[in-house]
Amino acid sequence: MKVGRTISAIRSVIAQGRADGKSIGFVPTMGALHAGHLSLIRAARAECDFVVVSIFVNPTQFGPGADYASYPRTEETDLAACESLDVAAVFAPPVEEMYPRPGLTTVSVDSLGDGLCGASREGHFDGVCTVVAKLLNIVGPDKAWFGMKDFQQAAIIKRMVADLNIPVTIELCPTVRESDGLALSSRNARLDEQSRSQAPAIYQALQAGSDILSKRKGSPADALTKARLIIETAAPLGKIDYLVAVDPNTLQDASATSSEILLAAAVEFPNARLIDNILVKRR
Amino acid sequence: MKVGRTISAIRSVIAQGRADGKSIGFVPTMGALHAGHLSLIRAARAECDFVVVSIFVNPTQFGPGADYASYPRTEETDLAACESLDVAAVFAPPVEEMYPRPGLTTVSVDSLGDGLCGASREGHFDGVCTVVAKLLNIVGPDKAWFGMKDFQQAAIIKRMVADLNIPVTIELCPTVRESDGLALSSRNARLDEQSRSQAPAIYQALQAGSDILSKRKGSPADALTKARLIIETAAPLGKIDYLVAVDPNTLQDASATSSEILLAAAVEFPNARLIDNILVKRR
Repeated sequence: MKVGRTISAIRSVIAQGRADGKSIGFVPTMGALHAGHLSLIRAARAECDFVVVSIFVNPTQFGPGADYASYPRTEETDLAACESLDVAAVFAPPVEEMYPRPGLTTVSVDSLGDGLCGASREGHFDGVCTVVAKLLNIVGPDKAWFGMKDFQQAAIIKRMVADLNIPVTIELCPTVRESDGLALSSRNARLDEQSRSQAPAIYQALQAGSDILSKRKGSPADALTKARLIIETAAPLGKIDYLVAVDPNTLQDASATSSEILLAAAVEFPNARLIDNILVKRR
Repeated sequence: MKVGRTISAIRSVIAQGRADGKSIGFVPTMGALHAGHLSLIRAARAECDFVVVSIFVNPTQFGPGADYASYPRTEETDLAACESLDVAAVFAPPVEEMYPRPGLTTVSVDSLGDGLCGASREGHFDGVCTVVAKLLNIVGPDKAWFGMKDFQQAAIIKRMVADLNIPVTIELCPTVRESDGLALSSRNARLDEQSRSQAPAIYQALQAGSDILSKRKGSPADALTKARLIIETAAPLGKIDYLVAVDPNTLQDASATSSEILLAAAVEFPNARLIDNILVKRR
């Protein structure tokens, strides 16, 4: 496995893979790899001969006061995990390699980024889109993998790729969970014991809402009321940032007649803001 | 020469060129090809085995009330010109092929697009950047050529390509002029006889300003005063939109000590807004 610290180094490694006729799969990450990331890498490896993983904690997607400095960094373990999964190359550049001068260029996706995480994390998705566009241009993969836990991010990236005709196929993988249902996140490690014990309430709440919607036992508003009650009762340390029922394509409020509804939540615990979602198909 | 009307058609033609080991050169245009465009195509052909020209009048870079509908369209002549210059493929898509759905994604370059043409053409450069990003992603060229007449556009595109790590080299070609100095433009055809006879004053004014600067006979302000006087005297039908002396890298006002200064002007004649510039090296 090659580790590229510069754009030219990783491009030359990938060009060799291309020249050997290999298909290029790409999994962009911010490191601190957990089983969710590993499932993306396995999915990529199952479809592509030559898998590239990037490890880059992108400063431009963290707002002022957000957790950029304290975001977990575990590169040695991450590299070992990649090696064990037969990753061909890891791109792990320093910040100056990705942003050698003040970046004047921004890629932004209107409307999809306005609600949910976009509402409380100003500029976050512009930072995500811009860095993902950069990484796709650097790596030039045939396919790239993203996790469903960051549903809004995935929707925005799919739209960016379609709108800008970026020659890559975006693949999504299901959220990986702890045995108690908590969605895996690099930020889970920062939860104190009490918060950790309360955090599974997010998924329980989404499941309860999903049950109401999928069996048409109630409206989106009913589902949200039930879910909110569960979080407020079972996770008093968590402050609900949002809890919504939206159309998975537009991310606008779902109507009572929608056949697919995304239930999504963000909850602020001390030291960690957690997100999760369930995509509900209604019979 | 192949003519592709769809993204998949042009990609498959270009993929064949790539598979044959050819280098891909790209000249994006809005058609109505004149000798300036042809110089770009010749430059591309001199360096690349396989030259792609796009002909697409991009609606998103025209403001409301701008001349999108009346912009000249001369496809038959354009295709003949491309054929005669040994162009391998022309990409001439309908609008619906480039924008099959409302585009939510915008690529924008801060600060470089604020002044000059950006000040009077709101959203123009966002439209330009977004469509050029799309075209570069569709064509995937090794090198792309742009004209110096649109200096600000070229500066913005170079910055976008650098900031987003788009794997292409941007090449610039000098402005091609009529024998009386008027910079070639597809819009020149729309000048009435009197405006046409006055329009060369723009270049004369820039030359006079350049003379003052290059020989250090005066300050940027002196050069602009002289240039303004020439346009106002010799081109009374033209209304000066801007006439500036700027740093060619930042496009911010040049200082008296700058070693390189871009003198640039935009002048509104009845039916046609003309732009021109001279890059002055100071001894």
